[in-house]
Amino acid sequence: IEKDLQATISGDDGGSVNKEALRQAVVNTLERRLFYIPAFKIYGGVAGLYDYGPPGCAVKSNVLGFWRQHFVLEENMLEVDCPCVTPEVVLKASGHVEKFTDLMVKDEASGMCYRADHLLKDYCKDKLEKDLRITSEMAMELKEVLSKLDVLSAEELGACIKKYGITAPDTKNPLSDPYPFNLMFQTSIGPSGVSTGYMRPETAQGIFVNFRDLYYYNGNKLPFAAAQIGQAFRNEISPRQGLLRVREFTLAEIEHFVDPEDKSHPKFSDVAHLEFLMFPRDEQKPGQSARIISLGEAVSSKDSKIVDNETLGYFIGRVYLFLTHLGIDKNRLRFRQHLANEMAHYAQDCWDAEIETSYGWIECVGIADRSAYDLKAHSEKSRVDLEAQEKYSEPREVEKLVISPVKKAIGLAFKGDQKKVLEALEAMKEEEALKMKTDLESKGEVEFYVCTLEKKVSINSSMVTISKEKKKEHQRVFTPSVIEPSFGIGRIIYCLYEHSYYMRPSKDGNEQFNVFRFPPLVAPIKCTVFPLVQKQEYEEVSKVISKSLTASGISHKIDITGTSIGKRYARTDELGVPFAITVDSVSSVTIRERDSKDQIRVDVSEAASVVKDIAEGVRTWADVWSAFPHHSSGSADE
Amino acid sequence: IEKDLQATISGDDGGSVNKEALRQAVVNTLERRLFYIPAFKIYGGVAGLYDYGPPGCAVKSNVLGFWRQHFVLEENMLEVDCPCVTPEVVLKASGHVEKFTDLMVKDEASGMCYRADHLLKDYCKDKLEKDLRITSEMAMELKEVLSKLDVLSAEELGACIKKYGITAPDTKNPLSDPYPFNLMFQTSIGPSGVSTGYMRPETAQGIFVNFRDLYYYNGNKLPFAAAQIGQAFRNEISPRQGLLRVREFTLAEIEHFVDPEDKSHPKFSDVAHLEFLMFPRDEQKPGQSARIISLGEAVSSKDSKIVDNETLGYFIGRVYLFLTHLGIDKNRLRFRQHLANEMAHYAQDCWDAEIETSYGWIECVGIADRSAYDLKAHSEKSRVDLEAQEKYSEPREVEKLVISPVKKAIGLAFKGDQKKVLEALEAMKEEEALKMKTDLESKGEVEFYVCTLEKKVSINSSMVTISKEKKKEHQRVFTPSVIEPSFGIGRIIYCLYEHSYYMRPSKDGNEQFNVFRFPPLVAPIKCTVFPLVQKQEYEEVSKVISKSLTASGISHKIDITGTSIGKRYARTDELGVPFAITVDSVSSVTIRERDSKDQIRVDVSEAASVVKDIAEGVRTWADVWSAFPHHSSGSADE
Repeated sequence: IEKDLQATISGDDGGSVNKEALRQAVVNTLERRLFYIPAFKIYGGVAGLYDYGPPGCAVKSNVLGFWRQHFVLEENMLEVDCPCVTPEVVLKASGHVEKFTDLMVKDEASGMCYRADHLLKDYCKDKLEKDLRITSEMAMELKEVLSKLDVLSAEELGACIKKYGITAPDTKNPLSDPYPFNLMFQTSIGPSGVSTGYMRPETAQGIFVNFRDLYYYNGNKLPFAAAQIGQAFRNEISPRQGLLRVREFTLAEIEHFVDPEDKSHPKFSDVAHLEFLMFPRDEQKPGQSARIISLGEAVSSKDSKIVDNETLGYFIGRVYLFLTHLGIDKNRLRFRQHLANEMAHYAQDCWDAEIETSYGWIECVGIADRSAYDLKAHSEKSRVDLEAQEKYSEPREVEKLVISPVKKAIGLAFKGDQKKVLEALEAMKEEEALKMKTDLESKGEVEFYVCTLEKKVSINSSMVTISKEKKKEHQRVFTPSVIEPSFGIGRIIYCLYEHSYYMRPSKDGNEQFNVFRFPPLVAPIKCTVFPLVQKQEYEEVSKVISKSLTASGISHKIDITGTSIGKRYARTDELGVPFAITVDSVSSVTIRERDSKDQIRVDVSEAASVVKDIAEGVRTWADVWSAFPHHSSGSADE
Repeated sequence: IEKDLQATISGDDGGSVNKEALRQAVVNTLERRLFYIPAFKIYGGVAGLYDYGPPGCAVKSNVLGFWRQHFVLEENMLEVDCPCVTPEVVLKASGHVEKFTDLMVKDEASGMCYRADHLLKDYCKDKLEKDLRITSEMAMELKEVLSKLDVLSAEELGACIKKYGITAPDTKNPLSDPYPFNLMFQTSIGPSGVSTGYMRPETAQGIFVNFRDLYYYNGNKLPFAAAQIGQAFRNEISPRQGLLRVREFTLAEIEHFVDPEDKSHPKFSDVAHLEFLMFPRDEQKPGQSARIISLGEAVSSKDSKIVDNETLGYFIGRVYLFLTHLGIDKNRLRFRQHLANEMAHYAQDCWDAEIETSYGWIECVGIADRSAYDLKAHSEKSRVDLEAQEKYSEPREVEKLVISPVKKAIGLAFKGDQKKVLEALEAMKEEEALKMKTDLESKGEVEFYVCTLEKKVSINSSMVTISKEKKKEHQRVFTPSVIEPSFGIGRIIYCLYEHSYYMRPSKDGNEQFNVFRFPPLVAPIKCTVFPLVQKQEYEEVSKVISKSLTASGISHKIDITGTSIGKRYARTDELGVPFAITVDSVSSVTIRERDSKDQIRVDVSEAASVVKDIAEGVRTWADVWSAFPHHSSGSADE
C-alpha cells in the first residue's frame, strides 16, 4: 500500500485503489491530529456535522483572514454580517421554500430515507464496474443515465428505479416514488409558533435585502460589491463524502452589483495574462478535458469568446490567484462552465472552480452572473424598489410609448368591466401596443384579450390613443445585475489538505512520516520552539523567544519535553508547521524549514522577527537562506 | 435637547431623559451609518435580529481579532469550531432542554405572548414613577418585588399579576398563568423528522463533549483552556433593548480546565496589581455600590478574600484589560459577584463584568467557576469517561474501601433478585458501607434497602465482607473543574459605541458633529485618504498611498469627491476613523488625528507606514507627534 500511496502522491494514475488509500492516509492524520472531529462524537455523532479541532480551526481562520485581505480589502468591498435565522417571506421570494429540494425515496417498510439520484448512481456504477454480463447496449444506457443524473425529473428518476428494480440498500424493501424534500432546517421564530423561519441555506439573501442601504452607503454609485462570511445550513438527506457534503458549513460570498449594460472591469488587465485550466461548455464531451486557456483570450477574443464579460472574468482570475496562493495545485484546479441545462433560467453565465481530489472533481467556488433575478424577486415581494440610477451628464431625448385610454368611452362600453379593460390597455407591452395602433388606424376596431376577464373585447379608435413621444430624460433607472462568487470554505480546506499532504521515509527507510506542506499563510502554527536537550538555559532562551513570538502575534508551540529532536520535528511536520526554532546554544539558534529540512543559524534576538517576516510574506525562505549562515545537522533530523 | 446631551456626555447626572436622548443620538448615528441594520428591514424586520453593516462588521471583526490575540494566542488556548445545529441528547445532558426557559403569559383572547417578569417590572416601575397616590407601604412592596424579579417562581409571578390586576399591554385582555417557554430554536435533523435538534444556546457544550480529545491533544496535561467563537441562538419571547437582547448573537467562550485541588495560576502575579470597581456579594445592599479593590487583595487576603481562587481572579483581571483596551470606560465598568441565589447550585463562584449604559448596568461577560458539573453531566449521559489523571512521581499508599459480596451465599438467599442485591451492595457509599460493617460485626445481620427492588432485604455476615485495605496508587483520577469566561460580543460592542460616542460643536458653534473615539485597534477603517482639492496630481498621490495601505493590510477609504475637507473629516469622524491623510502637495502630506484634530506633516513615501505603525500599536500618536513637524490649518477642519 505504501508504494501505491507514493505513486498516487507523486501523481501516477494508480486508479481508485490508490485514491482510497491516499484518502485514508490523509483522513487518518487529520482525525488523529484533531484537524477535525466528528461532532458530538461521545454521543455517537451526527452524520454531516463536524467540529474543527485546534489545528483545523487555525487553518480555517487563516483561510478566512486571507479571503478578507484578498477580496474585501483589495476591492474595498462592503462586508456585512446577517443572522442565520431567516423569516419565511425572504426565502419564499428567493425561491428556496419552493425549489430548494432534493428528490427522496423512502423504504416503504422501515421508513428510511435515501436520495433517489444517489441510489440510481450507485446502481449504474456498480453494474458497469462489476457485472461482466451486461450487454453493450445496456452499458451505453447506464452511462447515458449517469451523464444526466443531475437533470432527471422525479418521474424520470422513479421510472429508472422501477425499471432496474432498485430496492432499499439496507433492507432490500421496495421504495416509494421519488418526491421533493426541502433541504432547509425549519424552525419557528418567537413564542407563538405561527411565524415560520429557516436556517439560511446561503448568506447571499442577507446582502440582497440590504441592497438599498448598501447602495446608499456607497454614495449611490455602481459597481460595488458586498461580501459576507457566515454559517449556512442544508439538511442533507444522507450526507456522504466526509467533509465535502455536510449539514452546516461556512460560506464566503460576494455579490458584485453592476450595470447590466456595462460589465467591463477597470482591473481586468491585472488578471488578463493568467493562464490556467478552463473547461468551456462546448468542450464538455466524452473524452475531452479541460485545457489551458489565457483569461484575456477567453474574455475578449472575438471569435472564441467563452466567458460572458470582463467582470465575471476578473473574478475567475482572482479566484484562481486566491486558491493557488493557499496551496491548491494549479494542475488539479479547473474552471468548468455550466452547461445550459445546469444553469438557472435567469443566469447569464456560470463557472465553477473545481478541485481534483480522491473523490473526483469537487465544486468549491461558484462564480455566476445571476443577472437581475434576485433583486427583482425581493423588490416584487417586499414592494421596495431595489434599483440604481445613472444620472446623465446632459438630459437625453428618448422616444417613449404613451398609451392614453379614453375613460369615458371605455366606461360606456364596458360598464362593470371598465377598470379591468383600462388596466389591460395600460399594461400592454410596446410591441403589442404598436400593433394595436396600426390595426386601429387601418381597421378602426380590434379584438383585444383581457386576461383578468378571461375573454376578448372589442376596442375602437375612440377608446384609446397610442403614440410615440419624445421626452427628455435626466437619468436611467435600472435593476443592477449581480455577479456572485460563492466559496465553500470547508470544501476548499479539505481539498487543500489532500493537495498539501505527502509522506516521506525516515532516514533508515523503515518508517513513513506524514507531512502537510502548507504555505506559512495557511499553517495552523507558524513555528515551534524546541530546546535541543533538556537544559535550564535552553529552556529559558526558548521562553524568551516564545514571548516575542506571542507579542508579534505569531502562533507557535513550545515543546520542552525530552523527546528526541527528530521525533519532535516529525510530530509538527504532521501539523504542517513550516518552521522550527531549535535552541542549541544561548547566543544563537537554528531555524529549520519543513519541506527542505534546511537549517539556518540566527541570533537569539533575531529569531522571532525572521519567522514573523516569512510568516507574513515580507520575506521568503529563499531570502533568509541566502542571508544567514547555513547549519547542517546530520543526525538531528530523524 | 443638545444641552441635555452635552450634560449626559460630560458625565453630569441628568436623569433618565438625558439617557434616552443620548441613546437616541447614538442609535441614530449607528443606524444612519450602517453600523447595524434591523435584519430583513425591507420585509418589516424581525424583532431581535440585526445585521452588522460595513462599519459594524469591521468593528466586530477587530474585536474578535483582538480577543484571539489577547486570550487564545497569549494563553495558548485550543480553539475549536463546532456546529450550531445540536442533537437533543447533548442539550438534555446539559440541562437546557429541561431548564432553559423564561416564564411566559398569554393574552387569553388574542394569543399574544409576553414575558411575565417584564410585565410585572413595567407595572412596578410605572406605578413608582407616575402614580403619586400610592402609599409608602405600597411603594416599599413594589420595590421589594423589583429587587427579586429574577428569582420569582411561576406561582409567585402569577400571584403578583393577579394581585395587581395586570392585563395584556396591547389589548387589556386578561392573561394566562405564567408557564415556562423553552428559549431554544427547535428543528429536526435529517429527513425522517424523528431526530430533534436545537440551535445551540451557547458554544460551551461543543467544548465539553470534546474534552477527552482536547486533553489528549494537550499531552494529557492540566490545566489547559479551550476556546470557541460562534453564533448562539435564543428564541426570546419579546426582545427589547435593541442590540442588547437579541435572538441570535456571537459568543466567545473559554473553558479553562483545572485540577479542583489546585486552582492557583502561574501568571496571577501579572494581574495582581490591577485595581478596579468590584461589587462583592455581601456589599450588594440598597445604597451601596461597587468600590475600587485591588485584585491581589481580593484573591489572597486572608480576612477579606472575596474571589474564590487565583484562576478565577486571573481571568477577571484579563477581562478587565481586554475591555479597557477596547475603549470601555473603566469608571463605567464593574465586576459584580453573583448572589448565592443567582448562581446555579453547582457553581463555586461567579462574577459578571457589567458595563454601564443608558439602559443601566449590562452584563457583558460572565466569569464562572462551574466546578465539575458539565463534564460529569456529559460523562453520565454518554457513558464516556471525561476525566483527568495526575500521575504521582512515586506511588502513594492510600486506604481504600473494599466491598466483596459472596456470590454463592447471596444467590442462595435471593434467587432471582440476587443480581440486584449484589449491585446494590457494591454501589454503597463509604459511610453506608462502614456502618454496615460495624452493624454486621455487632449484630451479625442488618436490614438493607435495595432501591431497584424497592424493598428492604436482610444481609448477614456470610454474604459480604467489608474492609479497608491499604493500596499503592500510581495516579489520581478526577473530573476537572471548569472556569468559564463567556463573552457576549454584540453587547460589548454596543456598550463600546455608547462609551465612544461624543458630540463636538463646529467652529462657529452652529452645528454639532458626532464622533466615535474608537482606539485604532477597534476603528472600522483605520485611515482616510483625501486629496485637499480636486487635482490630477493629488489624486495620483492619493492612489499611490491607498495602494501601499492595501498592501500593508490597513483598511482605509479614499474620497476624491470635491466636498470640502471639513465635511469629509466630519463624515469620517462619525465612523470613528482615527487618522486622515490629506494630500496637499506631491511630496508631503498631512496626517490628522481625530480627537485632538492635531496634524503632522510626513513624506508621501512614509505616510502609509506611519499609519500602519499606529494602527498596529507599534507606535502611539504621541510618538509620531514628537517625531514629525506639526502642521496647523486654521480653516480646513470644520
